[in-house]
Amino acid sequence: MSYDKKHVESFSAENGYKKFRGVFAESPQLESNEEKHHRKIFSSIESAVAASGLKDGGTISFHHAFREGDKVLMKVVKVLSDLGFKDLTIASSSLLNCHDGLIEYIKTGVITKIFTSGLRGELGEAISNGLMQTPVQIHSHGGRVHLIQSGELAIDVAFLGVASSDEFGNANGSHGQLSCGSLGYAKVDAQHARYVVVLTQELVDFPNYPASLSQDQVDAVVTVEEVGDPSLISVGAARLTKNPRDLLLARIAASVIEHSGYFKTGFSLQTGSGGAATATTIFLGEKMTQQNIKAGFALGGVTGSIVDLLKKGMIGAIADVQSFDIDAAQSLRDNPAHNEISANQYANASSKGAYVDRVDVVLLSALEVDIDFNVNVLTGSDGVLRGASGGHCDVAAAANLTVIVTPLLRSRIPCVVNSVNTVVTPGQTVDVVVTDHGIAVNPNKPLLEKRLRDARLPVMNISSLRDIAIARAGTPKPIEYLDKVVAIVRYRDGTVLDVVRQVKR
Amino acid sequence: MSYDKKHVESFSAENGYKKFRGVFAESPQLESNEEKHHRKIFSSIESAVAASGLKDGGTISFHHAFREGDKVLMKVVKVLSDLGFKDLTIASSSLLNCHDGLIEYIKTGVITKIFTSGLRGELGEAISNGLMQTPVQIHSHGGRVHLIQSGELAIDVAFLGVASSDEFGNANGSHGQLSCGSLGYAKVDAQHARYVVVLTQELVDFPNYPASLSQDQVDAVVTVEEVGDPSLISVGAARLTKNPRDLLLARIAASVIEHSGYFKTGFSLQTGSGGAATATTIFLGEKMTQQNIKAGFALGGVTGSIVDLLKKGMIGAIADVQSFDIDAAQSLRDNPAHNEISANQYANASSKGAYVDRVDVVLLSALEVDIDFNVNVLTGSDGVLRGASGGHCDVAAAANLTVIVTPLLRSRIPCVVNSVNTVVTPGQTVDVVVTDHGIAVNPNKPLLEKRLRDARLPVMNISSLRDIAIARAGTPKPIEYLDKVVAIVRYRDGTVLDVVRQVKR
Repeated sequence: MSYDKKHVESFSAENGYKKFRGVFAESPQLESNEEKHHRKIFSSIESAVAASGLKDGGTISFHHAFREGDKVLMKVVKVLSDLGFKDLTIASSSLLNCHDGLIEYIKTGVITKIFTSGLRGELGEAISNGLMQTPVQIHSHGGRVHLIQSGELAIDVAFLGVASSDEFGNANGSHGQLSCGSLGYAKVDAQHARYVVVLTQELVDFPNYPASLSQDQVDAVVTVEEVGDPSLISVGAARLTKNPRDLLLARIAASVIEHSGYFKTGFSLQTGSGGAATATTIFLGEKMTQQNIKAGFALGGVTGSIVDLLKKGMIGAIADVQSFDIDAAQSLRDNPAHNEISANQYANASSKGAYVDRVDVVLLSALEVDIDFNVNVLTGSDGVLRGASGGHCDVAAAANLTVIVTPLLRSRIPCVVNSVNTVVTPGQTVDVVVTDHGIAVNPNKPLLEKRLRDARLPVMNISSLRDIAIARAGTPKPIEYLDKVVAIVRYRDGTVLDVVRQVKR
Repeated sequence: MSYDKKHVESFSAENGYKKFRGVFAESPQLESNEEKHHRKIFSSIESAVAASGLKDGGTISFHHAFREGDKVLMKVVKVLSDLGFKDLTIASSSLLNCHDGLIEYIKTGVITKIFTSGLRGELGEAISNGLMQTPVQIHSHGGRVHLIQSGELAIDVAFLGVASSDEFGNANGSHGQLSCGSLGYAKVDAQHARYVVVLTQELVDFPNYPASLSQDQVDAVVTVEEVGDPSLISVGAARLTKNPRDLLLARIAASVIEHSGYFKTGFSLQTGSGGAATATTIFLGEKMTQQNIKAGFALGGVTGSIVDLLKKGMIGAIADVQSFDIDAAQSLRDNPAHNEISANQYANASSKGAYVDRVDVVLLSALEVDIDFNVNVLTGSDGVLRGASGGHCDVAAAANLTVIVTPLLRSRIPCVVNSVNTVVTPGQTVDVVVTDHGIAVNPNKPLLEKRLRDARLPVMNISSLRDIAIARAGTPKPIEYLDKVVAIVRYRDGTVLDVVRQVKR
């Protein structure tokens, strides 16, 4: 077909524009139907990696929505190792016990740097014992997005497991047999990574909806046998625990919320997971029903206990960055009031707006709290990495009422101490500590303390809680550390809050 | 609360990190509940503009989802003029008759540059007569996103009218009284503009769902009396036209599609708006029912006629970048198979994946077609700007079957000519021209021509169509132009396809 525009040629040349040179000149993907439609389908992880241009020293990322059931990360790292890659940075939104196999790849030099929210199991133990040359960067869920957007964490290739995808990469975590629910963390990687590989067991017809990850973010789609085991996502049943201590903690926590001044129609909450949290949610739901108080929205980290309240009409909406069980995943799929949000929308302090800014009440756990209300959710009483920053410091910073729920002692080890091993959440952002021996209110919240005392809740000085703990279990022997820093605890704004040192054996 | 970590201080200093300096040091928005919750609410456009940091010479953007009913653009430009701004670039996804008032602001130097898909009415006339010093940049809907992502079109402040928003900026076009349906164009501006102002008549409770524009994209929310008049969105009723020529064109076009080889279950289509397009959709729907052929998805620019097919189960899904009538807007709101997509997902040639790449059949209109199949949808027979690039060249480039539907003559002016005034869609990407006097097939599609001839459709040489037109109306007098370029026609890949010169009076 002739296209003769000599005057356009000269105009373009004179004015610094590129002149049109045919439809395919800049859009070669349109030249054949094979390319136009099927260009993103790769038959193997290997071929997608080849197309990605990943090089030694590059950064690869993953999400942890499948939690202990994740089958993507280890599969991909093995492929990269077999391909001979070295010196990679691994940036997973978190790492769990199922990633213990990384130890081998760290030893062989395939992985030399790690960004993660958490470290546990043998991997946490090995790193605490000096496995890596470079300290691990521990970030919160919001802080991870901050590090990505600030450019410090530049992802070359994201490998994102999904429940279903079409061949253009429209993908979600909720419609498919291997369902993990929200892809809140993956959404960030899909937006920011230079190259995005979607891995799925279910390749469905185009267009796949909802498109939690969308075709304009995805470069490659690979069908794999299994992306994860959804039965291992769950972090606790939605039914009421039978553990008497958890029930006690939950009754106190629910009462604290009830009398905090924030328990009124339209309030918002995040309750998280675990036996005491679920029980608190259930007890709170009972109080909401009795007093006809309806919540505006619930945020999280969502479990079946929150979904139950949504179903009963006690909560207006759910904003879900991560589905903690199958009930949550199914609700996200089926209930239009249950919505998926990204980690940037959830908790990034430097985003234009984070959901945590709108939360009234948050319930959080702790490994240790100290008399300055600082919280450690990362290192155990032996100083070893066995926890996760998660959204802990994000929600604590922004919520109107931050309630830490912890037994006073765990296996005869005090949980209220003089000074926590590792600060993950600054005491400035913690309002109440609920233990099975009493509750302490941060002195920076005198009105709150008055309200709880007026409600005849067992308020006491946090030093008294520490004293009780020590009286029962004795003063813990200080942990012996070496000088080497094995992990850097980044606050949600990217600053360094603490460091974790190698434990002395 | 004390926070004493001297060793962290020294570690941070030695390793080039910022040490934590308190929760509010990097997140001042958390210091008061007023800031934390209500910081985006501005009482006027003026105050939002002040907060935006907009300066003389800056670029402001708008979307045209309200079409002729838009009330945002002129309101904002008046405010900026009253505030004394000069030398602004206006980047609206398109401009319509309701924006004729811009002439005044161009004359006073408030607006000195324009990026738009279309120009019409008095504004188009004035610009064609040399109103502006700098040529207008005419882009396609996909091309606009390309220009934004390439950095050529850098938006300082986007002013985006929405049907509803919460105070954090979670906004949509479909849930609210002043509903425009899809915010496909606005989504791109929300993602890329440095500062994003949402304007709404309906401020609703947080969180507002669906969040077509989301809180992490929005800086300011302003309540205004009216963002638009939805009754002026519609570009033609969904019912069958009574215009006999449109009915004839539609019957031929539907038959062309039927016999093209692409009419089989799973095919995809975009039919656009206007009497002939709607009629074609209806006739095609009848053929689909008779032959039990179901479409995979419909794309567009969506009208009620497409929505009808979705409701009847004849189409699997709709991907909607712009809702052309109230039926489409309501369907987007209510039907989970009717989905909103951004202009990047719709049509950008340099995105990782555009819906147009997946379209089998597209029906498009024309002001003129020439014997090389080049199409003009921008300038009238007098050379004056009175049309829009739209998604025309985007879909034509990618679709498997591009059908142009045009009467052979309009008011005794030939629509098939030797050479179009302005090339908007290159002939290389046009497959069939359907007129009320016969159809022509691009010689680069011999198999298609054979299929249509075998189906006894009135296929003829395109030169013959031109000859008939000239025989009936005479050879049109050439348009007289001056040298000055008033508009540059950018192809979807950013290259210059054509220029429009000032008409001689």
